[in-house]
Amino acid sequence: MLNTRIKNDRLLKALRHQPNDRPPVWLMRQAGRYLPEYRRIREQAGDFMSLCKNPHLCCEVAMQPIDRFNLDAAILFSDILTIPDAMGLELSFAENQGPQFSKRIESVSDINKLPIIDPEASLAYVTEAVRTTKSALNDTIPLIGFSGSPWTLATYMVEGGSSRTFPRTKALIYTQPQAAENLLSILAINIIEYMKAQINAGADVAMIFDTWGGVLTPPGFLRFSLKPMQKIVSALKTEYPDIPVVLFTKGGGAWLEDMAASGADGLGLDWTCDLGNAFNRVGRQVALQGNLDPGALYGAEEIIREQVLAVLTACNNQPGHIFNLGHGIEPGVDPEKVKFVVDTVHQFRYK
Amino acid sequence: MLNTRIKNDRLLKALRHQPNDRPPVWLMRQAGRYLPEYRRIREQAGDFMSLCKNPHLCCEVAMQPIDRFNLDAAILFSDILTIPDAMGLELSFAENQGPQFSKRIESVSDINKLPIIDPEASLAYVTEAVRTTKSALNDTIPLIGFSGSPWTLATYMVEGGSSRTFPRTKALIYTQPQAAENLLSILAINIIEYMKAQINAGADVAMIFDTWGGVLTPPGFLRFSLKPMQKIVSALKTEYPDIPVVLFTKGGGAWLEDMAASGADGLGLDWTCDLGNAFNRVGRQVALQGNLDPGALYGAEEIIREQVLAVLTACNNQPGHIFNLGHGIEPGVDPEKVKFVVDTVHQFRYK
Repeated sequence: MLNTRIKNDRLLKALRHQPNDRPPVWLMRQAGRYLPEYRRIREQAGDFMSLCKNPHLCCEVAMQPIDRFNLDAAILFSDILTIPDAMGLELSFAENQGPQFSKRIESVSDINKLPIIDPEASLAYVTEAVRTTKSALNDTIPLIGFSGSPWTLATYMVEGGSSRTFPRTKALIYTQPQAAENLLSILAINIIEYMKAQINAGADVAMIFDTWGGVLTPPGFLRFSLKPMQKIVSALKTEYPDIPVVLFTKGGGAWLEDMAASGADGLGLDWTCDLGNAFNRVGRQVALQGNLDPGALYGAEEIIREQVLAVLTACNNQPGHIFNLGHGIEPGVDPEKVKFVVDTVHQFRYK
Repeated sequence: MLNTRIKNDRLLKALRHQPNDRPPVWLMRQAGRYLPEYRRIREQAGDFMSLCKNPHLCCEVAMQPIDRFNLDAAILFSDILTIPDAMGLELSFAENQGPQFSKRIESVSDINKLPIIDPEASLAYVTEAVRTTKSALNDTIPLIGFSGSPWTLATYMVEGGSSRTFPRTKALIYTQPQAAENLLSILAINIIEYMKAQINAGADVAMIFDTWGGVLTPPGFLRFSLKPMQKIVSALKTEYPDIPVVLFTKGGGAWLEDMAASGADGLGLDWTCDLGNAFNRVGRQVALQGNLDPGALYGAEEIIREQVLAVLTACNNQPGHIFNLGHGIEPGVDPEKVKFVVDTVHQFRYK
């Protein structure tokens, strides 16, 4: 599994704390609506899930930012909610709306009926997208596979879609915490199999997006978000010790020590977190990925440059930093600003 | 201004780090849609702004939770966006929608044209609501006056309403940071006069709600949120040294030291922040207000009790804690659960 054949291995080196000429750079949601060529494919596919379920088109949109910006990693094009869809909740996206499930988890008995999935069967469109993209990359740069975290998937499954305050999920953890843990355990099992399938299909790095871990209390985060993520990290590291695992909890800046203790190789940081401080806290244990404010992409070039340089210099020229945004690129961003960010990172050299 | 006449002065004592038998308790958005008696008045008033502009009804809804729960403080009933409305942006609330301004700040010239307001004139409905509520309270408990923070008001004024990622406000700070500072300065001036008017009308405590400070980077928070709040704290403490000032930045847990250095008497904490840790960091400098997860109010009583006791015992029986939620009570909450929380705090005694 050790991908020594990959020509540009800056990302893998950074995740192993090995020296690089400069930090590797990739950007969350680098394949997305801000790119006109993405919008064309998206229209061609029809609805968003049809795009996700078409491995050929997934590969095409995953490659678009690579062709444009010369990034140091590609990421599988998919959605974090493919697993609940495969578990029978029926995911759809209305035009310009968030995700919606036609079924949602309403009771303990709904949780007890949830299936263990075989991702090679029900999520074959994802593993096929990994294979197709891996082949298109032709070992130039690594391919990142991913899943949503158990807690994050649980919030969508219980709310039936997006939420601002998660009333149903909060009701679940504060009335039936054991049932919530059962739900999270089933999700962890399915995510482990899903990530294994992605790795077997060619993913070089496994990333877990914990978009909503930051809406929990500190003990709630440990119990309902980190503990099930920890299970995933352990299972993957046992089976694939050479595949780096990266955890990203939005709003998780207070909990980096706990997250680093999970055995993950890297942690993603959002833009509200002080990267230099994070490096001092956990930078010897884990690589750190982030954390330019995605809003900076609406900025003027001289200010973008200042912000990018602040991120690049925060870790004191030490290895183990992966340049990224603190969250995904927003649809209204000008691709030229993205190019400017990437070029600024490319011009940087470690002292 | 020292309100020694107030019979239940637990809140004022906690804000001065003086001993209490138990922490005072009040709850953000304690007057609100979760109360059937509130919904009746709200319907009677017509739209939400008509309620805010009717001092008699504002007093009535501010008193509703006091009558029900025997709380240790009342809070002025108003909206954080009264100032931009008074500045000419024309605030309205469509049914079950967030706030909307009919005009928004689109350019530097819009910022330069913004007026300094006379709150005694254009916000007389607020000062009158303070007077009416203060009189209804009859010195039983203190009355908290409040405003949105400059940064929080600026986001609504620039976006024209609510936002998820604040693209226009981010564009402003990353293209025209000086213009953003000018906008924030005008807002700080208006907020200072507004809070003075509330204090002159009888408010015993001044609270600044920085709902959106947590969407900034660490340097961005210091520059665009804390610096203008600091101006407000300084101006108020100079003129009214005995009126406590409380700052609440949602998502501001990483920045408590900076916030405590502002000279504020108290800091509000959201539920993602570890209260015991916060107490160790800044608990000798400032009182801490918070921080039960508002989602716990959807919980079972035995779990609510555990969560409330965890908050009550986090500060090691030291004075300087004010029990509250980490954010406002949500509309779907059962008032009986709120009563259970308040009763649990009432039964607690410091060792």
